[in-house]
Amino acid sequence: MTSVPAPPPGSPQEAREQFVLDQVVASFDRTPDPRLKQIFQALARHAHAFAREVRLTEAEWRTAIDFLRRCGDITTDSRQEFILLSDVLGISMQTICIDQPVHGGVTEATVLGPFFREDAPRIELGGDIAQGAGGEPCWVTGTVRDTFGAPVPHARIEVWEADDEGYYDVQYEDGRVTGRAYLFSDADGTYRFWGVTPTAYPIPHDGPVGHLLEAADRSPYRAAHLHFMVTAPGHRRLITHIFVEGDPLLESDAVFGVKDSLVKTFTRHRPGTPTPDGRHVEGEWSDVTFDIVLAPEPEEHDE
Amino acid sequence: MTSVPAPPPGSPQEAREQFVLDQVVASFDRTPDPRLKQIFQALARHAHAFAREVRLTEAEWRTAIDFLRRCGDITTDSRQEFILLSDVLGISMQTICIDQPVHGGVTEATVLGPFFREDAPRIELGGDIAQGAGGEPCWVTGTVRDTFGAPVPHARIEVWEADDEGYYDVQYEDGRVTGRAYLFSDADGTYRFWGVTPTAYPIPHDGPVGHLLEAADRSPYRAAHLHFMVTAPGHRRLITHIFVEGDPLLESDAVFGVKDSLVKTFTRHRPGTPTPDGRHVEGEWSDVTFDIVLAPEPEEHDE
Repeated sequence: MTSVPAPPPGSPQEAREQFVLDQVVASFDRTPDPRLKQIFQALARHAHAFAREVRLTEAEWRTAIDFLRRCGDITTDSRQEFILLSDVLGISMQTICIDQPVHGGVTEATVLGPFFREDAPRIELGGDIAQGAGGEPCWVTGTVRDTFGAPVPHARIEVWEADDEGYYDVQYEDGRVTGRAYLFSDADGTYRFWGVTPTAYPIPHDGPVGHLLEAADRSPYRAAHLHFMVTAPGHRRLITHIFVEGDPLLESDAVFGVKDSLVKTFTRHRPGTPTPDGRHVEGEWSDVTFDIVLAPEPEEHDE
Repeated sequence: MTSVPAPPPGSPQEAREQFVLDQVVASFDRTPDPRLKQIFQALARHAHAFAREVRLTEAEWRTAIDFLRRCGDITTDSRQEFILLSDVLGISMQTICIDQPVHGGVTEATVLGPFFREDAPRIELGGDIAQGAGGEPCWVTGTVRDTFGAPVPHARIEVWEADDEGYYDVQYEDGRVTGRAYLFSDADGTYRFWGVTPTAYPIPHDGPVGHLLEAADRSPYRAAHLHFMVTAPGHRRLITHIFVEGDPLLESDAVFGVKDSLVKTFTRHRPGTPTPDGRHVEGEWSDVTFDIVLAPEPEEHDE
């Protein structure tokens, strides 16, 4: 696994490499926007540090450039390979972690993923988001509260999930809109709806990012989950999922989206067990509780 | 220019961020190829260090992902935006610097650039590479030697350059092949040919990389130069350019390709000055000498 050793400090080779970096950093000195300048210069420092640490060869760099090109080639409006790349490198999750710091009992955020869409239908409290998506019925209830424990009434709760084949509606060619809806919390901050018990599925892995995972002997599978996006005036928007306790994939989620606090108990019920709202269900069903705490609207970052 | 401050060491927030990175690094532990494992894990460490240092926001990261997508959208077989991106961040030059370490008096390498093509015509010693490209005639001579000073006979010398409008043949739509050719050094290692005095030009800057340069108040111009690729059995392939002494752009080359040792004196001659080979030239012409030293073939890196 040896690569060329790093040049000793003070050597002419080390000086040549540092000179290249110094020129690049200086080239961004006149960037008018100070935040952009900070980002460009840090990007240059970290990118060069990477290349110098691993002693990157020209041939390897050409391979990397070609990889980026192939990511571009496969990307369309419904397939965004650069997001997948960011996801499997954990950068998506890291920026969420940075941007939504630990804050009291606020519900933790996780990745949005590529399958959100704006045009989901509205359902009433207690309605069914499946809209025909296959899967075992799942009764989902909970509360939306603020950090003082006060209920948040009329919070908009957007939920979406894969069917029991592991596919979202947008992955079918027939234009269906299933497995997604939005609803509003009640005057007391509670909510309830039917969905399907989440199913594990792989991220799209027939492109360059799939080849990267294969080369790393990594699984493309995500742990089973149900997506939430919760918005309410005066509160920070929450984008998260809940995961299924006991899912063996919790330890190896392809995009590092699992947080312990988001793993919930999905209780399975035998066929014939009465449902909370009297709905007749054939076969097994499950239920889960997810109590949500929203952060206050963030203060603007200072200039 | 303030961004969110970094969390103090030992804080819960710092632990959360480190946990994300630790998971990502561990996910590459089983990569079968040890070199690839080293690269993946270093990439993860440096990418996360960048995001954490600048406290990257989700909105900023979405902008970056969109930038990469736009690079993909504009890329074709004749326009490779990811290479331009690598060039303007100095990463192309850094990998060359790493991959071709300081070695006695060997001629320094620089970037290949996007305008090389395989199908250039052969010319005889003393021939003209212009083939119709506009510009002031320039007589180029020199020797090809090894690191012991011995001439390298029959070295293949590939040369290419922009015309006096700043364009390479491939940038015209008419299929012309001009401003490029290859020739072989003589039995005594010498070479000579006519070309045109190099003209400065901008890298393609109507795409995302051009916008990046604009946002940084950076010029897209490259210092004027003439490309060389020199190959001979038993020697390392040399890819380089020569630059024009006194060119005001030497200090701000858009891709950081300038090395002091590659800046050469182009001597201008008044109209009517006799040429070295008796060619009749209307108007001014120039000449330059470029003596080349090739490295021995590199030893294979150990396993």
